[in-house]
Amino acid sequence: MRMYDIIAKKRDGGTLTGEEIAFFVKGFTDGSIPDYQASALLMAIYLRGMDAEETARLTACMAHSGDTVDLSAIGGVKADKHSTGGVGDKTTLIVAPIAAACGVRMAKMSGRGLGHTGGTLDKLESIPGCSVSLTREAFFRQVNEIGLAVVGQTGNLAPADKKMYALRDVTATVSCVPLIASSIMSKKLASGADCILLDVKTGSGAFMKTLDDSIALARAMVDIGEHNGRRTAALITDMDTPLGHNIGNSLEVAEAVETLRGAGPADLTQVCLALAANLLWLAEKGGPDACRAMAEDALQSGAALEKLRRMVAAQGGDSAVIDDPSRLPAAAHARNVRCERDGWLRATDTEGIGVAAVLLGAGRETKESAVDLSAGIRLEKKAGDAVKQGDVFATLYANDAARLDAAEEKLRAALSFSDAPPAPRKLVFARVDKNGVTRL
Amino acid sequence: MRMYDIIAKKRDGGTLTGEEIAFFVKGFTDGSIPDYQASALLMAIYLRGMDAEETARLTACMAHSGDTVDLSAIGGVKADKHSTGGVGDKTTLIVAPIAAACGVRMAKMSGRGLGHTGGTLDKLESIPGCSVSLTREAFFRQVNEIGLAVVGQTGNLAPADKKMYALRDVTATVSCVPLIASSIMSKKLASGADCILLDVKTGSGAFMKTLDDSIALARAMVDIGEHNGRRTAALITDMDTPLGHNIGNSLEVAEAVETLRGAGPADLTQVCLALAANLLWLAEKGGPDACRAMAEDALQSGAALEKLRRMVAAQGGDSAVIDDPSRLPAAAHARNVRCERDGWLRATDTEGIGVAAVLLGAGRETKESAVDLSAGIRLEKKAGDAVKQGDVFATLYANDAARLDAAEEKLRAALSFSDAPPAPRKLVFARVDKNGVTRL
Repeated sequence: MRMYDIIAKKRDGGTLTGEEIAFFVKGFTDGSIPDYQASALLMAIYLRGMDAEETARLTACMAHSGDTVDLSAIGGVKADKHSTGGVGDKTTLIVAPIAAACGVRMAKMSGRGLGHTGGTLDKLESIPGCSVSLTREAFFRQVNEIGLAVVGQTGNLAPADKKMYALRDVTATVSCVPLIASSIMSKKLASGADCILLDVKTGSGAFMKTLDDSIALARAMVDIGEHNGRRTAALITDMDTPLGHNIGNSLEVAEAVETLRGAGPADLTQVCLALAANLLWLAEKGGPDACRAMAEDALQSGAALEKLRRMVAAQGGDSAVIDDPSRLPAAAHARNVRCERDGWLRATDTEGIGVAAVLLGAGRETKESAVDLSAGIRLEKKAGDAVKQGDVFATLYANDAARLDAAEEKLRAALSFSDAPPAPRKLVFARVDKNGVTRL
Repeated sequence: MRMYDIIAKKRDGGTLTGEEIAFFVKGFTDGSIPDYQASALLMAIYLRGMDAEETARLTACMAHSGDTVDLSAIGGVKADKHSTGGVGDKTTLIVAPIAAACGVRMAKMSGRGLGHTGGTLDKLESIPGCSVSLTREAFFRQVNEIGLAVVGQTGNLAPADKKMYALRDVTATVSCVPLIASSIMSKKLASGADCILLDVKTGSGAFMKTLDDSIALARAMVDIGEHNGRRTAALITDMDTPLGHNIGNSLEVAEAVETLRGAGPADLTQVCLALAANLLWLAEKGGPDACRAMAEDALQSGAALEKLRRMVAAQGGDSAVIDDPSRLPAAAHARNVRCERDGWLRATDTEGIGVAAVLLGAGRETKESAVDLSAGIRLEKKAGDAVKQGDVFATLYANDAARLDAAEEKLRAALSFSDAPPAPRKLVFARVDKNGVTRL
């Protein structure tokens, strides 16, 4: 078998066999296939596409290119949840405790923030003492005991993905649905869960800006999961405006706790209940309505909050923050940002709002950047709210006061005011599972 | 300017600017742009194409990536002729002397054979003593005195093409019209001629197997030449069957001499006269009919043969071979190959006939292979000839008798016999110049 022939086949629109895909992934990972051949193939895939079977096989090969996590030491159904990334997206901190409270095992490996989106690991680390590095034994023990652990990736998971992503990043082959889907799902498959619920964001703050693109990505990922024997479903949720009010690590932990107390913002609460209900359904805890009722009950009863408290304590964190969020780190400087006119607030560029938070120190511009865990933005007003001139619509938090001006300028540019209320947007646009797409 | 953005633009079907193309060619040649980005761009070009202006600019940048030849020390109109390569294609040895006899300056840099096609340099070297390495001064002096010199490439011509071709060769991006055209024409532009006549072969022994593909390549090359201020035209000529009877270096020199004596095969003579007439027309020696008459006269008068004799002598060769081709090297072994049935001969796979000659030692399988200058094939019968069982249809020549069996097997597989005469094919299918395509 020759890499040349594999490139030529895809270039001409052919369908690669499992053997051809395995040959490519193995050779690329071990370095016997040079980057210049891999990038030619990736561009051919970008422009010619891959069918569901090819994509599933590519993902399986990537998932098996390094270590895979064997979760069999954990009893019960193990579930995972993945968001494609957004602004103010603290859903894992809410959905995972709800699912755990309902008996699903959440052995979750999470990531860090990059660019305009945040990451669950950074959020957890804003809780004093909370570690996201557990030994595999401690991780399994905690999930068996509490039903819930959120840690950083351990071992050498999907090295083919890491290498391929780095090459795609410099050869303009990132924005391609089968390649995005296989990149995400290779890590999910390697992480070992039985069920995978995907939260595919759509809108100006998401990587996928249009509903059609978001649905296409969701379908590709669900197909990959199901082809590889994992029960997989996706919700398409709104990211045309930030989720909740708070953006930034400790600010988002506080809002997640508030939501688990039943006092969170309506949009965040509803999206989390929809995600949790679907996760329970995937884990075969009951029909859709029963799962929704279980999720609501876990929230209202405080059972989910209790799961989060126990997880924080088990991971070495100060669990007193659950009752008193003022123990979370706070920024030295706060600035109120006021409306310059009457009207209705619109979030026209949610990615820009995420960038404003990065400018305050809340996120990473590159993988090497340090994160200021207490920096961020609280949106006092949400898109669609009526405002008066002089109203505070946002508060900026930073430890470095020099960052405030640029962040305010970026935030103002990302918002607009209209003379009439904007049309309300849905929170959940569609649901995708092995049976197809249901628009909601 | 970033290479990433150039790749993304072409990936999305955009048109690259002159600045973008220059940035790519310069960076690729000096190594500041890595091969993995170049191959991604080449695949995007393969699948998205390039328009005539982009192709002309790419070619100009490649032509200027190294040395360029300044022919201004040679008086008069300097012309070049290029064939896309075929089997038994000895036209340069006939057309260049005819053109020189008619007052056109042929300062020609030629190439060596590779794969199933031969090269003029190897053919000239089969003449005892004949050198194809001249100093630039000797080259200019010879063209000024005789009107004709055929030498190997001197200096560092079009290094961008050399590097790009090597990358295309391993990334399945060779068979792409704008890239093939720019590769060929970059060397022609760098070689400095005022006029360029292209002989684009079509059929089973050519790189372009179909007439439409051959015309597309001819158009692309003519556009490049004209965009860059060179008078350029192309003929599409038949390569569905070998040209003339002889394949192999000394065998082809003998046939070229025979043709310049007016006793050559009809197909070879007619193709050479058409090429020569068009070369004279490009060099503004007169209208089409006058140019054709001049070419015929140079052949019949012996003036063209005299030019070849003088060129061989000037380049150190034994010019007595012109009167006595038996002075050319002869192979130690000859084998007659006979027809196994009555019928009409067909050349079904002319590339295969070229490969049979390579198997005898006449060509190179890789750039490093040695060539046996006296090895080759004489086709005693041509496609379309009626034959009887037992007739000799070919003679194989080799110095290594062990090569004969495999070559005979390959030759037999490349030919067939039919019960009815095959439809005659044209020798010249079309003519392409700046005004467009004329099918003949």
